[in-house]
Amino acid sequence: MNTRNVYINGKFIPEVDAKLTIFDSALMFGDMVFEMTRSFKKKQFKLKEHLERLYASIKMLEIPITLKIDEMEKLCYKVMEVNDPAFRKDDEHRLMIDITRGPLSIYEHVVDHVGPNVIIADFPLRWTVRGMGKLFDSGVDAFVPSQRAIPAYLLDPKVKNRSRLNYLIVNIQVSKYKGKNAWALLIDPDGNIAEGSGDNFFIVKDGKLFSPEGRNILRGISRQYIMDELCPQLNIQFFEKNIDIYDVTNADEAFYSATPFCIMPATKINGLAIGNGKVGNVTKLLLKQWSKNVEVDIVKQIKQFNKSDKKLNPHAPSPYAFKR
Amino acid sequence: MNTRNVYINGKFIPEVDAKLTIFDSALMFGDMVFEMTRSFKKKQFKLKEHLERLYASIKMLEIPITLKIDEMEKLCYKVMEVNDPAFRKDDEHRLMIDITRGPLSIYEHVVDHVGPNVIIADFPLRWTVRGMGKLFDSGVDAFVPSQRAIPAYLLDPKVKNRSRLNYLIVNIQVSKYKGKNAWALLIDPDGNIAEGSGDNFFIVKDGKLFSPEGRNILRGISRQYIMDELCPQLNIQFFEKNIDIYDVTNADEAFYSATPFCIMPATKINGLAIGNGKVGNVTKLLLKQWSKNVEVDIVKQIKQFNKSDKKLNPHAPSPYAFKR
Amino acid sequence: MNTRNVYINGKFIPEVDAKLTIFDSALMFGDMVFEMTRSFKKKQFKLKEHLERLYASIKMLEIPITLKIDEMEKLCYKVMEVNDPAFRKDDEHRLMIDITRGPLSIYEHVVDHVGPNVIIADFPLRWTVRGMGKLFDSGVDAFVPSQRAIPAYLLDPKVKNRSRLNYLIVNIQVSKYKGKNAWALLIDPDGNIAEGSGDNFFIVKDGKLFSPEGRNILRGISRQYIMDELCPQLNIQFFEKNIDIYDVTNADEAFYSATPFCIMPATKINGLAIGNGKVGNVTKLLLKQWSKNVEVDIVKQIKQFNKSDKKLNPHAPSPYAFKR
Amino acid sequence: MNTRNVYINGKFIPEVDAKLTIFDSALMFGDMVFEMTRSFKKKQFKLKEHLERLYASIKMLEIPITLKIDEMEKLCYKVMEVNDPAFRKDDEHRLMIDITRGPLSIYEHVVDHVGPNVIIADFPLRWTVRGMGKLFDSGVDAFVPSQRAIPAYLLDPKVKNRSRLNYLIVNIQVSKYKGKNAWALLIDPDGNIAEGSGDNFFIVKDGKLFSPEGRNILRGISRQYIMDELCPQLNIQFFEKNIDIYDVTNADEAFYSATPFCIMPATKINGLAIGNGKVGNVTKLLLKQWSKNVEVDIVKQIKQFNKSDKKLNPHAPSPYAFKR
Amino acid sequence: MNTRNVYINGKFIPEVDAKLTIFDSALMFGDMVFEMTRSFKKKQFKLKEHLERLYASIKMLEIPITLKIDEMEKLCYKVMEVNDPAFRKDDEHRLMIDITRGPLSIYEHVVDHVGPNVIIADFPLRWTVRGMGKLFDSGVDAFVPSQRAIPAYLLDPKVKNRSRLNYLIVNIQVSKYKGKNAWALLIDPDGNIAEGSGDNFFIVKDGKLFSPEGRNILRGISRQYIMDELCPQLNIQFFEKNIDIYDVTNADEAFYSATPFCIMPATKINGLAIGNGKVGNVTKLLLKQWSKNVEVDIVKQIKQFNKSDKKLNPHAPSPYAFKR
Amino acid sequence: MNTRNVYINGKFIPEVDAKLTIFDSALMFGDMVFEMTRSFKKKQFKLKEHLERLYASIKMLEIPITLKIDEMEKLCYKVMEVNDPAFRKDDEHRLMIDITRGPLSIYEHVVDHVGPNVIIADFPLRWTVRGMGKLFDSGVDAFVPSQRAIPAYLLDPKVKNRSRLNYLIVNIQVSKYKGKNAWALLIDPDGNIAEGSGDNFFIVKDGKLFSPEGRNILRGISRQYIMDELCPQLNIQFFEKNIDIYDVTNADEAFYSATPFCIMPATKINGLAIGNGKVGNVTKLLLKQWSKNVEVDIVKQIKQFNKSDKKLNPHAPSPYAFKR
Repeated sequence: MNTRNVYINGKFIPEVDAKLTIFDSALMFGDMVFEMTRSFKKKQFKLKEHLERLYASIKMLEIPITLKIDEMEKLCYKVMEVNDPAFRKDDEHRLMIDITRGPLSIYEHVVDHVGPNVIIADFPLRWTVRGMGKLFDSGVDAFVPSQRAIPAYLLDPKVKNRSRLNYLIVNIQVSKYKGKNAWALLIDPDGNIAEGSGDNFFIVKDGKLFSPEGRNILRGISRQYIMDELCPQLNIQFFEKNIDIYDVTNADEAFYSATPFCIMPATKINGLAIGNGKVGNVTKLLLKQWSKNVEVDIVKQIKQFNKSDKKLNPHAPSPYAFKR
Repeated sequence: MNTRNVYINGKFIPEVDAKLTIFDSALMFGDMVFEMTRSFKKKQFKLKEHLERLYASIKMLEIPITLKIDEMEKLCYKVMEVNDPAFRKDDEHRLMIDITRGPLSIYEHVVDHVGPNVIIADFPLRWTVRGMGKLFDSGVDAFVPSQRAIPAYLLDPKVKNRSRLNYLIVNIQVSKYKGKNAWALLIDPDGNIAEGSGDNFFIVKDGKLFSPEGRNILRGISRQYIMDELCPQLNIQFFEKNIDIYDVTNADEAFYSATPFCIMPATKINGLAIGNGKVGNVTKLLLKQWSKNVEVDIVKQIKQFNKSDKKLNPHAPSPYAFKR
Repeated sequence: MNTRNVYINGKFIPEVDAKLTIFDSALMFGDMVFEMTRSFKKKQFKLKEHLERLYASIKMLEIPITLKIDEMEKLCYKVMEVNDPAFRKDDEHRLMIDITRGPLSIYEHVVDHVGPNVIIADFPLRWTVRGMGKLFDSGVDAFVPSQRAIPAYLLDPKVKNRSRLNYLIVNIQVSKYKGKNAWALLIDPDGNIAEGSGDNFFIVKDGKLFSPEGRNILRGISRQYIMDELCPQLNIQFFEKNIDIYDVTNADEAFYSATPFCIMPATKINGLAIGNGKVGNVTKLLLKQWSKNVEVDIVKQIKQFNKSDKKLNPHAPSPYAFKR
Repeated sequence: MNTRNVYINGKFIPEVDAKLTIFDSALMFGDMVFEMTRSFKKKQFKLKEHLERLYASIKMLEIPITLKIDEMEKLCYKVMEVNDPAFRKDDEHRLMIDITRGPLSIYEHVVDHVGPNVIIADFPLRWTVRGMGKLFDSGVDAFVPSQRAIPAYLLDPKVKNRSRLNYLIVNIQVSKYKGKNAWALLIDPDGNIAEGSGDNFFIVKDGKLFSPEGRNILRGISRQYIMDELCPQLNIQFFEKNIDIYDVTNADEAFYSATPFCIMPATKINGLAIGNGKVGNVTKLLLKQWSKNVEVDIVKQIKQFNKSDKKLNPHAPSPYAFKR
Repeated sequence: MNTRNVYINGKFIPEVDAKLTIFDSALMFGDMVFEMTRSFKKKQFKLKEHLERLYASIKMLEIPITLKIDEMEKLCYKVMEVNDPAFRKDDEHRLMIDITRGPLSIYEHVVDHVGPNVIIADFPLRWTVRGMGKLFDSGVDAFVPSQRAIPAYLLDPKVKNRSRLNYLIVNIQVSKYKGKNAWALLIDPDGNIAEGSGDNFFIVKDGKLFSPEGRNILRGISRQYIMDELCPQLNIQFFEKNIDIYDVTNADEAFYSATPFCIMPATKINGLAIGNGKVGNVTKLLLKQWSKNVEVDIVKQIKQFNKSDKKLNPHAPSPYAFKR
Repeated sequence: MNTRNVYINGKFIPEVDAKLTIFDSALMFGDMVFEMTRSFKKKQFKLKEHLERLYASIKMLEIPITLKIDEMEKLCYKVMEVNDPAFRKDDEHRLMIDITRGPLSIYEHVVDHVGPNVIIADFPLRWTVRGMGKLFDSGVDAFVPSQRAIPAYLLDPKVKNRSRLNYLIVNIQVSKYKGKNAWALLIDPDGNIAEGSGDNFFIVKDGKLFSPEGRNILRGISRQYIMDELCPQLNIQFFEKNIDIYDVTNADEAFYSATPFCIMPATKINGLAIGNGKVGNVTKLLLKQWSKNVEVDIVKQIKQFNKSDKKLNPHAPSPYAFKR
């Protein structure tokens, strides 16, 4: 099988050599914005929406990129095309688009590229969803760690950037929690549910769907899809609302959403059962409708990935390396 | 002249090739800790203190590095030795030590290095202090931008890490301020002076020296040196204390401290003169004593660097690329 | 031409002599509430609403005024009538109604008036809108200064009072910003957009209109008119909502509202283009409808004022004296 | 007896005519800074310190005053000299110095004075201390109202300005409290004791004197005098420290300080006795030493004022008009 | 007449002996959750809803109770049945259900009961509503004390628990307020109206009904009933919304809701009239509809209770013992 | 062996019957203040200091107790005397003094005691220190849970009261943490270390001892003893100071203090070694000096208790029942 290549500033570079100079602003300041997508049946899902959010991030940080959004979109398709021969038939394409400001000016004379970097990597979705298949049945345990979400006015999570050490700290804290299948659920300093460490959160109460206001969170593309397309299709009322731990603990159902796995049931919070502690009906309906819309059985595909991975790839993921 | 080489995980790599895989946690999460040092007369200054702070950062983030602090110290000397032939006689060695957790586990099979990265670069101090010479005479204008310092309980600046996009945002905000020679001066959400975007801050009032409590700031090695060594030598009383914009505006003198330039007078705040608007006597005394201790005229050396730079290097630094 | 007279506690005093004792609570404590109105074709606009807000302010501060709201309204008309001969034909009447508690009791025996003051001034609207005409074409640049809006629980901006030094500080900060045509846009300590330093703020996104919740802002009469009358007329959906800098930066359009200029397009935030950086369609529609409703071309009138002002009045306004 | 005259911009105006145009920034924005002093035996006390604080306030607000501090000092003496004939023999001079930015530029052509106003009034101290004599024996009851002190980063109380409606609101709240002889004691939003509505606060515990850190308070000249002069004289240890309601309730003694009354014992907090509920020894010592230093028995003088006031002046002060 | 008995862990104990060991977690940690209900015509009102909230509280605190909710409901009926002979004909049953975790483990060997306690007391509603009858005519005065509501993220009031010393502190503060018929109205640290010290709060503005968002409050069963049943019945629009003191002061009507008295008009806030200072029409309508629904004239019944109480029971309630 | 008796309002009641009516304010509002002491060699330690703190708590809550502090002290000795026959020779007396306001007034006619309750229990210290012996060798792991300390201005922990559900919630959170021998370490909402869930916290750095400022904590008697007596005896410099997680993680040593165990080494924080991960020298010195002062080998005694407990008492403590 062929190997994958990463697009970097106009060239295709073998994955193993896809690297960035240590003098880049990305490594000096965490000054990189990014998007990560997925395909269904090898067709990119909501690529336009991802790119629009990417350009919103670029604008907020005033990165002087000249590439237009349409050109970026074409590049994405080109990268998939170039790499597809290196993908298995049943794989899905997970694009990772990284934009940096480039090396700091004082280092410009010692690097081989000056100005913003455009990097597009393309790798199998199966890597990201490793070990997730069984969680669609059990649901995960949403654990509220000690680390709080950073409010937007201090560092805006709506700008999808790489200064996100706090998410990694959260993952470390989760790894010290006794509960099984624990995923992070952050609250902001006011106690409002914010998000996971790479995903959004929803609860179902009395048949209605709620998700935190889009303030101290990344406004996920999946979240938007659920709100704007799945809910109307299924006639489910949706509300953006401040919710807290009490609301989640006493909800009927809950789930996370994110690009790679779409919807992941959360059947516990801090070890306490949400609803009856089983995957809820609204959650199932949403997953089913999404699967129908994209013509891929989302859960089944991930379970299939997991099964074949076990045979092929002995690398055990770290406890906090598997999300988004 | 020879070119410089960067130490990366046991090897010396030419500067231009000193790169990190895009799958590294450093680029995924801003998950890198670092130190930047300087020499005086090519002898490293307070290297041990820098490394102790580095290991405190590593510990806080639980990066599973195996290299001991003594080995790290030896490596630093080795890197200087290897690179010295590529340095001009009058140069100083600025070491940049970067530690990352390594590639996320799901990417481990596609990269050429697994586990934490140890990177030690060595470059001329003159790059960092470009254009600073004249500021020792005029002093800088401390500008309080709209962006606030992130409090330690949300993302601890005492851990010297690369998730520091907020400092870059601050620099952008400073670049939109009308004042000349403006440097950032951040306040935290409670209105206490925190730090610059890469330096600490001091004021002098009635002959006493004050610096913000070491809470929402990086506890600078230079700051510590001033507190613990210069002040006793000069019989200056020093206090860590919450200070605010009123205190700075009505101080007699003020200055920034950081490794590359040691002490930089601040003669204005938000365009208003501090004291008589001239570089103050205590500031001068401290700079003089420091110079004496290290047997280098700190200001003169930087002015000399700037002069020769102008001849040799036409690259203009961006407005926010010159600090620390 | 006649000169204008100011109503003070039952008498009409020439404008130049309209003064308040330095022993008044207004000057001792900033203890004055006020309203400023405008006419269209010399008919007061929403005078009742202004007076209702005035009486709400009076109530909140427990100023023991005996004048009833209906009497106040009649007085306003009387003041216009008295002064109209001193107005040019094309002028509009800007009333300024000031209410104070009166001199502190310990000074009562040395002043010529005891108890609350009722002051109604009447001056040409053209003064207030000086230099604004061209801004309707370019739009203004909304600049977020370092100073935060004071939350209502500390000093309620809904009470339209004169303890508003913070707005003046904001204007000073704006004057130090490099951008052209900059107007202040304050955020509160939680990072929510609050208001300008004398106006409310709106954004348009996907055809819908949003304005901050009426909490840490003055609830403008113009804002209310847009919400309650213009939006229904134009079939525009309106929402009160917490919005932040990200939302404004990524909005399609934005504008300020206030009594003298009604609606002022904001085409930039912190120097970054909002939408395509031009005055937006919804903004134009609202201005047009408002003009239609009041039978005055709002923009044209202000431009006309500005043109004649240049000829007649050489006084240059200070950078922060021209709003509301 | 002669009447008093107020110095306004170079002229002496009879007290009753000492007025400010309604178009002044002072009345538009609460944009006035001020000082209020007192004499002992008709010699001004700490006038220099008052003026230095005044000029710090002027600087913080960037009021473009041209008068130098020495000229201001001379003016103060001049004002006293001019007015002394209108003072009784046993009176003390209370100077009130008001500085404003002047009328807003758009009104400049209709007023009789353009640019900053300098106003110096001089009136008998007895007015301000009306009814206070007996409180030196009983002590006052420090009541913590619902209104919080505004933190310095939102509106700095260290800048002695007239946007101080919050102090008036506090006084209204105190007037609704059942306790007798109640004076306000504000806490800031973090629960730290700040100040009164025109005075500073101290507690005595185990023979040591404590006062809140100089952050969210006006840094009183009297406070400074106690700290810097009285305490060393009396060998009392003094500490600036965050204190809260618990600390006050369990203190041995407490008192307020301010220019007109110097030191006022607080024997209760929220109706609960502080210490044994009587005026404390350290409080008495401080008052005694102060009296000695200025050669005036401070308490006796005020009691004498009160006695003669009753005969002469039937005006009853409002409940919140008597302080500072 | 018979005496009442309290159900404790399976037994019926005379009221006077209904006690809990001092080693219980309830007395060690305030670790008790509870509900208090009432009947109309001796039929429990919304008992199921009370029990559901009780079980939500139990879940949040992880009290290992084994009794199922249905069994608890039956027990409640049983307790009423057992006690009814001890009730007057016209009485109503007020159940108090207390659940504790039981004695701390280190004391288990010295107590006569181990594990959670289930306590159900049943007493006449008339005790709780003592003296309230006349308030339905005058309305109460909502007083905002200095003590703030504890935000949910620090101690969640939605969990109806006995660690509620802050409510008692509030009641003490109210008792020091001069106003007549004062009831507490708490604001949270952000200045939003929260709740009373045992009741929820509503305002009416322009015919619409508003109550604070269900975040930093107990979500009352009465509140829910008004929202979900009375408002639809009466065609009144209801909104959960952040409201503050300004909103209440300028509302048309206001009232408290709680189980024992259902709806209590608030005609003042901090002594200022709300609306015209009389009981409002919407308030009356809601009370009337509620009375109709339960076939009891709520106000008349309470007035009747009060009348007979005066004759029978000389115990004067403490100022803060009469609510909920 | 005899059984112990609890003093309740003048009577001695067998331990098993020491109960409080469910109508008491203690159970209604968590309205109880308390102290828990210990003896060394059966002599009470710092009883006076405990009682002074108790009376400060009583004062803050305005509980109308008539018993004087001296009478209370005598009662304490009496209780010990009465109970000593029920104690083993090697036991120590742990007094628990509980004060409540008494039954709410509306229940006064149904209870057998009206007015404040005074309860003094006396039980063997060994109960409280169960299982602690081995921890003196290993040290405990200080775990920072998600629950924050409630700041004093919302509910003052300096008032030692029973509305302390938050401490119990903390203990539940600790029980879900993977680490062994974990004890809670709370931070306040500003990120400052506060206290444990029943103990104070100290760190040692460079030979100096630090403990959090006495603001959002109970000011422990043991803490005070270490500060005021042990440190001077041992010539150790002590500072009250805001410290945070970074400071603890990078400290040389750390420990908890509380009455029953005096000083407990903390050798880890969140699973990371503090210093070299062993019990530190300053910690040992303090324990040794304390033992010397009281003539009891504190650690040895507790280990001895634990050894005999194992034989005699099979009751396993709950994970959060063993502290203070």
